[in-house]
Amino acid sequence: MGIEFVKGHGTENDFVVLPDPDGTLELTDSRVRALCDRSRGLGADGVLRVVPNKVFAGSGDGWFMDYRNADGSIAEMCGNGVRVFAAYLVDAGLASPGEFVVGTRAGDRPVVVHEDGSVTVQMGPARVTGASAATLGGVSFPGVAVDVGNPHLVCVTDVPIASLDLAVAPGRDQSMFPNGVNVEFVNVVGPGALAMRVHERGVGETRSCGTGTVAVVAARLHQTGAVTGQSTVDIPGGRVAVTIGEGESTLTGPAVLVARGELSDAWWSSLGE
Amino acid sequence: MGIEFVKGHGTENDFVVLPDPDGTLELTDSRVRALCDRSRGLGADGVLRVVPNKVFAGSGDGWFMDYRNADGSIAEMCGNGVRVFAAYLVDAGLASPGEFVVGTRAGDRPVVVHEDGSVTVQMGPARVTGASAATLGGVSFPGVAVDVGNPHLVCVTDVPIASLDLAVAPGRDQSMFPNGVNVEFVNVVGPGALAMRVHERGVGETRSCGTGTVAVVAARLHQTGAVTGQSTVDIPGGRVAVTIGEGESTLTGPAVLVARGELSDAWWSSLGE
Repeated sequence: MGIEFVKGHGTENDFVVLPDPDGTLELTDSRVRALCDRSRGLGADGVLRVVPNKVFAGSGDGWFMDYRNADGSIAEMCGNGVRVFAAYLVDAGLASPGEFVVGTRAGDRPVVVHEDGSVTVQMGPARVTGASAATLGGVSFPGVAVDVGNPHLVCVTDVPIASLDLAVAPGRDQSMFPNGVNVEFVNVVGPGALAMRVHERGVGETRSCGTGTVAVVAARLHQTGAVTGQSTVDIPGGRVAVTIGEGESTLTGPAVLVARGELSDAWWSSLGE
Repeated sequence: MGIEFVKGHGTENDFVVLPDPDGTLELTDSRVRALCDRSRGLGADGVLRVVPNKVFAGSGDGWFMDYRNADGSIAEMCGNGVRVFAAYLVDAGLASPGEFVVGTRAGDRPVVVHEDGSVTVQMGPARVTGASAATLGGVSFPGVAVDVGNPHLVCVTDVPIASLDLAVAPGRDQSMFPNGVNVEFVNVVGPGALAMRVHERGVGETRSCGTGTVAVVAARLHQTGAVTGQSTVDIPGGRVAVTIGEGESTLTGPAVLVARGELSDAWWSSLGE
């Protein structure tokens, strides 16, 4: 047995964390795919390699989140992943509870690890970019377009979201979203309380989407004539809280560490490169 | 961190192994479901609790496989699980390579752990019980009914199995299989070489089914007028070898240990009972 790992999830978006203090772990695409395979490997939505900023970027203190999708591709940021990453750092004694910074390909991200184990992450600005509509089952749902680094179309509706069939991708305005769009369907469940389901572009329906929850709160505030404010968002994988400020947003949600251990050397060797 | 685990798979049928040498682990249905949950837990098709026969049954040497399905229910035996169980015992130094016996709810099962890591398991008798047919996409596939402790309908066909749509359950003769049936579609790929896909009753298509591979070889031998013999069987999750003898059958296949570690105490405590 050899390579260490931790398994955790943030609102049921789950990750394999791989500590790599020396930056010597050769994490090829095929190894990521095998790790994330839910029958042949450990199983996860992505891998979070934990490498010192000094090793990854050549300078700086603290830790860099080398995030990989389950298919081996690189993503710049992941709002749920960075919570799990921060919780891991504190659990492993590599960071102190409270505020610190996590390096990501999208830049340094300030995080706060709270006493109850939840984590607040700065998500950058959420910009309302216009109006559009999604179609589902022949019905048109008016929506608000929001950019949170990636494109979202937020459809607040009175139709109970539990009744929607998201097995197929919602139709969109191709000219407005030529590269696809993440579509959120939202019910207002109370003052400062929203519930949503999300269809992520290229993925399908997921149990959680960090940027989606930010987009949803920004869109709802826009609808009510506000620029800043906050709300909880219930997603299939749990509950998060979002604050929209002037040119900045934060996402607070749970981070759960399930297990830790070591990969079998024989298994790792069998993967090739 | 506390409770130890090992994660492994047999032809991509995957399991969480929980060593319990004192028999003190309280493995409730809800804890099994959480462990097997592929987002909130470790993720697996089932749990294999490793408990001494002396503790479980009150007498005897060796180890008992307390098998639980992912939904928390109990199953008597699992041909893929017992291979992983046996490989774990050898890896952990609880049994020596070669032949030994594993206790199961279906009785003692002799196993052989080979030098290459593959494991042979005695699967009991496979009895041909008659002829029937499955329907798929409006097409009738003639088949052979085989009992391997559970009911199978084996349809050897010239239609390439890769072209079949097993997203829906194949139709069956309700009077012959009132409680459902596992249906295998089989191509003959060479002398002593079969390939199959399987629709498991109550589950859907799976990547592997231990009793199904035994049923398939027994049915093919029956079709060719033989009573005993052997064949390889390619399944989506890998390759196994089956031997049909007089009133007995054996299944030989891989068992892969992927990782070992400890469950988080905080996570385990959060599950309740």
